[in-house]
Order: sequence, then C-alpha cells, then structure tokens
Amino acid sequence: MAAKKIKPPKGTRDLYPEDLLRQRYITNAWRDASIRCGFEEIAGPTFETTELYSVKSGEGILGELFQAFSGKGGSEALEEIAAKGKAKYALRPEFTPTLARMYAAHAKQLPKPCKWFTAGPYFRAERPQRGRLREFLQWNIDVVGLPSDEATPASKAQMDSEIIECGAQLFESLGLNSKDCKFLLNDREQVVQLLNSQGIADSQIEAALQILDKQSKLPIKALIDLTRAAGIDSPDFESYLGRSNQDKIVLLNAEDDETPIMRIKGNASIAKEHLPILTAISKRGLSNWCELNNSIVRGLAYYTGSVFEAIADGERAVAGGGRYDNLIELFGGPPTPACGFGMGDVVLGNLLDDKGLMPTGVELMEAVAKPQASIRPVAFVVPNGDEANEPLVHTLTANLRRGIESEFWLSREGRKPWNNDRYTVGPMHTRISYKSTRNLGKLRADAEKQHARFFVEIHADNKVELTNMDTREPITSDTHGSFSVDPAAENYVGHAIAQQMQ
Amino acid sequence: MAAKKIKPPKGTRDLYPEDLLRQRYITNAWRDASIRCGFEEIAGPTFETTELYSVKSGEGILGELFQAFSGKGGSEALEEIAAKGKAKYALRPEFTPTLARMYAAHAKQLPKPCKWFTAGPYFRAERPQRGRLREFLQWNIDVVGLPSDEATPASKAQMDSEIIECGAQLFESLGLNSKDCKFLLNDREQVVQLLNSQGIADSQIEAALQILDKQSKLPIKALIDLTRAAGIDSPDFESYLGRSNQDKIVLLNAEDDETPIMRIKGNASIAKEHLPILTAISKRGLSNWCELNNSIVRGLAYYTGSVFEAIADGERAVAGGGRYDNLIELFGGPPTPACGFGMGDVVLGNLLDDKGLMPTGVELMEAVAKPQASIRPVAFVVPNGDEANEPLVHTLTANLRRGIESEFWLSREGRKPWNNDRYTVGPMHTRISYKSTRNLGKLRADAEKQHARFFVEIHADNKVELTNMDTREPITSDTHGSFSVDPAAENYVGHAIAQQMQ
Repeated sequence: MAAKKIKPPKGTRDLYPEDLLRQRYITNAWRDASIRCGFEEIAGPTFETTELYSVKSGEGILGELFQAFSGKGGSEALEEIAAKGKAKYALRPEFTPTLARMYAAHAKQLPKPCKWFTAGPYFRAERPQRGRLREFLQWNIDVVGLPSDEATPASKAQMDSEIIECGAQLFESLGLNSKDCKFLLNDREQVVQLLNSQGIADSQIEAALQILDKQSKLPIKALIDLTRAAGIDSPDFESYLGRSNQDKIVLLNAEDDETPIMRIKGNASIAKEHLPILTAISKRGLSNWCELNNSIVRGLAYYTGSVFEAIADGERAVAGGGRYDNLIELFGGPPTPACGFGMGDVVLGNLLDDKGLMPTGVELMEAVAKPQASIRPVAFVVPNGDEANEPLVHTLTANLRRGIESEFWLSREGRKPWNNDRYTVGPMHTRISYKSTRNLGKLRADAEKQHARFFVEIHADNKVELTNMDTREPITSDTHGSFSVDPAAENYVGHAIAQQMQ
Repeated sequence: MAAKKIKPPKGTRDLYPEDLLRQRYITNAWRDASIRCGFEEIAGPTFETTELYSVKSGEGILGELFQAFSGKGGSEALEEIAAKGKAKYALRPEFTPTLARMYAAHAKQLPKPCKWFTAGPYFRAERPQRGRLREFLQWNIDVVGLPSDEATPASKAQMDSEIIECGAQLFESLGLNSKDCKFLLNDREQVVQLLNSQGIADSQIEAALQILDKQSKLPIKALIDLTRAAGIDSPDFESYLGRSNQDKIVLLNAEDDETPIMRIKGNASIAKEHLPILTAISKRGLSNWCELNNSIVRGLAYYTGSVFEAIADGERAVAGGGRYDNLIELFGGPPTPACGFGMGDVVLGNLLDDKGLMPTGVELMEAVAKPQASIRPVAFVVPNGDEANEPLVHTLTANLRRGIESEFWLSREGRKPWNNDRYTVGPMHTRISYKSTRNLGKLRADAEKQHARFFVEIHADNKVELTNMDTREPITSDTHGSFSVDPAAENYVGHAIAQQMQ
C-alpha cells in the first residue's frame, strides 16, 4: 500500500518555524502588555464539561462546539452519547466560563480584585473563513472582584478602563495608533433603558439586543424581518435600527464644557454623567483611543454594563468584551463585579500584515527575543491622600507602563548609561491599589505583599517620593531633591527607577 | 435554583498565578535549552484526525484517546459515530505523528536537517495518578532529515547526541546534575539481533519488545506469563527476562582501552563498536550523563535504532525517545532519518519539587522573567578542514550553548563590564553544520542563510578565528591576536563574542 499523506483537520494550522515566530511575536506582546499593566497569568483545561457551557447558554450552544469523550468507554459509551445527543466534554470556545468557575471555586481566599490574563487555544465548530479558524489562540484579560466596600460605579469604571488601557498599550507596542484602532464603548444598561422607552417588553430585550448586535452585518430589511419574527412590535425600534451608528456628537469636557474630549456616535440621550467610565478613561489619557458608540451591544448574553469592541480602520472587530457582574454567581460564587476582554491571534495577525507592521527575517527574530516584562512589580503608585493628586496616579502609571525614550544622560554617581546615545526608560510593570484607604502604611503593606520593588507616592506640585522596598530606604534626587511625574523632566521618577535597577 | 459549582474535568488542572509561574519556569527552560542548541519552534493542531493515529498503531489506540467531533452535525452525526465506533477527530496524545505529517507535507523544500521543538498540551484517556494527568504539557525536540549524501551512521549518531545534549543542557539549567539524571541508551537493532539469537521469530519480535519494555514494572512471573500468552517459545528469552538490567560492565575508552568512559548495564555482547552514538556522546563531553542499558526498548512501535530514557534517581522516567527512520515514509514522505524525544511537565515538576529545585516567591518571579535565548543564532562553529579539530567543534559548541561565569574583566577598548564583580558569558544560541563539506565558503554561506551573527572557525592548537557576519570583518584579540576554545583562558572566544554583543 502506498503511504498517503494525511491532512490536518480543516480550519487548523501547521505552524512551521517562520509561522511560529509570527505567532510568538503576538503572544509575547500580549504577555508583555498584560504583565506591565499588573495582570497575572493563569490557565485552565483545554476541554471542559459540556455542562459548563450549557448552564450559561442552554444546550443550543453545544451545536457550535467541538465535543469530546474518552475513547475508553467503547461502543456502549458511544451509544449513550447518541442517545443523550451530547458528549460529556467540549473543547473550550472561550475562556470566561472557565475563569468564572476558577474564581467561584476559591472566591474567599483570592485577592480583590484578581487581575488575570491567559492566552491559549480555543475551538469553534464553524465554517473557516478569513479571520475565523476552527482552532485559534485567544488572549483574555479580566479584572474580577473588588474590596467589599468598593463596588462603586467609580471603582467599576476603573476596572473597565484598566482593561482598555491594557488593550491600548498592546496596540501601541505593536505600532498601531489611535487612528488605526478605536475602542467603541457602550453601556448595556443604557441600551436597555432606551429599548424600554421604545416600548419593548423585558421578555423581548435579549432578542432586541441580539438584533442590534447584527446591525453592522445585515441590511435594514433583514433586521426588520428579524424584529417581527421575534414578535417585537415597536415602530420606534424599527426606525432606530441601522440609525444608531449615524448621529455624531462631540462630548465636551465636564469642567469647561468646551474642550472636546470624545466623539459619540449614536443616541444623544447617552449623556456623559451616565458613563463614569469616561472620567476614568480621561484620567488615564485614553480619550483619543475611545469613542462612545450606541450600536455596540455584543452578542454574548452575560454582559451587564459596559460593553466595548476594538475596531480597526472603522470596520473590523479585533477584540471585544465588557462587564459581567452576574456570571461568578451563576457558577456558584458570591456576587462579584467583573470585566474583561478577549482578542484572537488570527484577526490581529491579519491586521498587522495589512498595515506592514509584522516584522520579518532577522527583525522578527530579534523582536521575539526582546527582554520580557518583569513578573515582579517594579513600581507601586499611590496618591498621598490629597484627592487632587489622584488623576496623576493614572497618568504616571500609564507612562511607567508604556516606557519612554529620553535624550538625558544619567551621569550621576559617575555612571554612564550603557546606551551612549539615548537613554531608554523601558516599560515597567506598574501596579496601583483598588482600595479606598488613603493610609500610606496600609498601601505600603500591600505593595510589600505584592513584592513591588519601588513605592511611588505622588505629592502636590507633581512631586514624587520614592522608596526602595528591598532596603526600605527613601531615594532622593542628587540634582533636584525630589522626583517629578513629568517624563520630559530630567528628574522624572522613571529615570530614577531605571537607574536604580541597573 | 441555587447555582452549583461546576468542577473541571478529572485529571486536568486549574492553574492560578503561582501554579502558572511554576509551569512557565519549566516551559521557559524548555524553550531556552532548545533555542540555544539550535532547534526552531513549530506547532501543530491540538486535535487531529483519528486516522493519523490509527494508520500507525491500528484502531486499538483510539480507546486510549479522547475523541472529538463537531457538534454541528446534530443527532445524525452522533448515530454515525456510534455505528462506526469512532469519531472523526482525536485530541493529540503525542506530537510525533503530527511532526511526521508536517515534514512529509513539505519534505522537498525543508532544510536538511530540520531541528524542531514544540511545547503544548497533550491528552490521554487514562486514570489520573501521580505524574500522569489526562491533560499535560509536553516538550518535544526532533532532528529530522539529513543532506542526501550524509545519512551515515556517524551523522545519525550526531543527531542522536544533539538530542541528548539538549536534554542534558535542560537538566543543567534547572540545577540537576549527571548524578540526579542519567540518559539510559540502547539500540533496538541490537536487541532485535539478540532476540533473533534467542530463537524468536520475526513475527514475534514486536511482542517480545513490548514484554521487555515492561521489565521494570512487572514481576518475572507476570513477564513469563505474557511471553507464553504471546506464543513465544524461547527458554533463552525467558531466562534473559528480568536479567537484562543486572550485569554491569564498564566500557573502556577506544583509544587507550583503559579510561572508563561509560557504564553499561545488561548484555555484554553490546560492544562499543556497535554503537557509534558513544563516540558522538564522548566528543560532546556527555559521557557522564549517559549509561548503556540493555533493558531499555521503549513501548512505541515506531522506533528503529537508538532508544533512550532519561531516568532520575535510578527509577523515574523523566523523558524518552529514539530514532524513527521509517515514520516519515509511512506518512507519505521520502525515506528520512529522524530522532527525537519528549518530556512532560508533570513528572519534571514533581522531580524539581522533590529536589528542592523549584524556586518560590520573588525568586520564582525573577527566574521566569530572565532574558531568553536569542532566536537569531549567535555563533556558527565549524572546523577548518583538519579532521583532528572536529571534536573541538562539539566541545566549544557545548560550552557556548551552556555559558560560563568568569572572573575576568573585559577592559579592552576602555569598556568596563556592566557587572562590576564577575563577567558572565551567558548561554549562546550556537549552531553547527551537518554537511560533509569542509569548504569554508560553503559553510559561511550556510551561516549567513541562518542569520548567524558570528562565524567561528577552529584551527590547530585550540586557536579560533572569529568573523562578524554583519560587517564581514574579522575580529582579533588585542592581547593575544587570536582567540582560544578554552573557557578558562582570558582570550576565550566566548568572552570576545559577549563583548561584541554589548
């Protein structure tokens, strides 16, 4: 018998060395952005019980999955599967149910919040097409849980905006800017209120949301057909369909009511005071990455508040996510605020290719071998009690996480930088606290527990006090006494930390 | 309905941040050892067609696997599965069939040899126990193919010994030494000859090998029962069973017939001239890591020559592999010499725990964030045509791959090392050629094609000539003119390369 060549399953990939390096370039960028934004890596099984997926979405979901079973059971087991209409296991199509199961299992002992990331293979039984394979990698970042007295809208908005910050840092590290990619934000609660005002009954809200989610994919006629098929009888809703993406407004700065801070597409009734996330995003300097867009609702039923999508060039969705405050409870855990997002390697790889941003040859080899982010937190940034300094915490944190290039030489203590031309302050793993306390002793204990190297307190006038957590000694600037939050200043605190770490 | 906690599938793991870091410590060490030994990373699908496994091992294998199917097919598809007694897909239990399929698909275009590694999840439908889970990670390294005029026993032995070198470097980088771990070597062809001499028919050889493979797990009585059940009628074989591990001999150095170079356990008829691998191993300075052991045959049917197992503390198998020269052909490729091995993360993790070698806390964080090996080859080492220098190629290559710590300061050109106390020459990604040519121009073209930074020619008297491949300029030593292969010499070529790379 002549040996025949066996093919890989349709919709899967054989990655030869150059292909693998391209994928590694993406997964390294995912890990780096996650770690420097303070996320910790976790992992779950590649397959789960089918129950894990049907408990949340009903048995219908199983038709979209690869199901699996142990071959040990023999023909009896196969007949049982045929009788039941489903197997015991399924290859995971997404990470969120696993994460919810893992958090619920140890909710009491886990830190609040858990900032977790993971990257691994996922599987969907769908027809392969550009950007959609049956096996692909996905990156997930999630912020889960809050200190019990801290489940405020402002804290939740901070969680949401940390997710978006990490996504923006990922794009930036790959050479994509805020013109290439935008995070379109919306709030499901807002949309539900709007739908209620259009006369849609509570029992039909989920169906209406599913129809809104299809707006960018289907013509208006098909959307109206779906609406009537779902038994929704609302002329307001029908005339709203396909129009939610048309109106454009400029949201003005809350303080001076003049400076434009963000574009809004969609329903004008979504006012800035309804979306605390805008404040959090503005504090982090992310406004140019974001756009309110009333057409975003996301297809997954478990979202409860903020929803967002990263859209490249105004058309292709690169990542999506949102808030799922009820999901941990559904899996047997306590009520737990949670927010996260996911991004696949196939769509991101296509985007980098199309923009000419995927390195090749020696450049690719060198990019993949670049030093990775420190697992140990480098900086732990806190305000010194004065509320006016708090926005600076987020600005400095974003700058430390991002890293800067500087023309300054660090020649103090007779040292020269090892790079003679420019001094680079690399991206630093930087953490903040979610606690409401302004007690510096408690915050410092937190920094210590997380093994941070440097404790960074922000005082008035952009001044920063720096403590080496290993020696517990304060560090002072030879030239200026204290340090600055300003990356353009010679005594920028990022310089000082980079110098200390040499 | 009160929400109930859903459990993960039995034999799988939920990895929380500290667990994940421990696993990352292992996978980083795998990648690093692979890359610096010149292996390139590849990856295949997590699931394959069941045909890929049954073509090699028969349908019986499917009872040991997790099988999978698309849920899209509905109940008709399930009935088809029940009727056929198997599903279309299976979660991969090992990597070798995927590798053979991938090599066969592009055999003509691929370099000869391909030195490939991969690390990912694998699945077995067996009862979970210590060291054996249903989902685990596995590291595979393989050398596949040789230049057409180079499929000699010596070249094959070089392939085999590169696999073992990479394994030994992995152990060394984790703090394990040659007393903790030994590679037990054997040759299946030798064993088959022995079995033939014991009167066992060719049709019974495979069954006899399977029985030999169980020697360490079953008592002699059970082995003899198995022998008779298999219809093997050989008193010689029966008296040999359980004894193959008893005799100990010391193999003497071929040149002086006095220096012991390796211990042998087992049948004395395995003489040194029958195992060219011994010469290759000795050239690479690996003799202390190896032991010939006649009881090793490995359970998988596809091995054709060398077989080996890494055994810790004389009892637990940490890794296993061997030569499979017929497998690529079986998957539709050309006749192709190939050799590889695999190692699981569970067994290795247990070993590191038991030896106190798994770091914890801040040490673990720092170990995981250490700089990783350069994907771009740093050194490409060749002999300068004189056969007497060839063993030095392997010694220098092993030292460059391993890295050294040195007391010397590099103060040439007014530079000081950035580490003021000791100068570390880190592990370097180092490659060699498998070609028989001694034409330096051709070898240099090879180095260039592989993007090597430095071309290292070994001359007589341990002298080394060094060329920067980016500038094509020779590099000379200010103090000594030329460089040395000796890591203890001030003009060690490793120092010079490390200095050039600053």
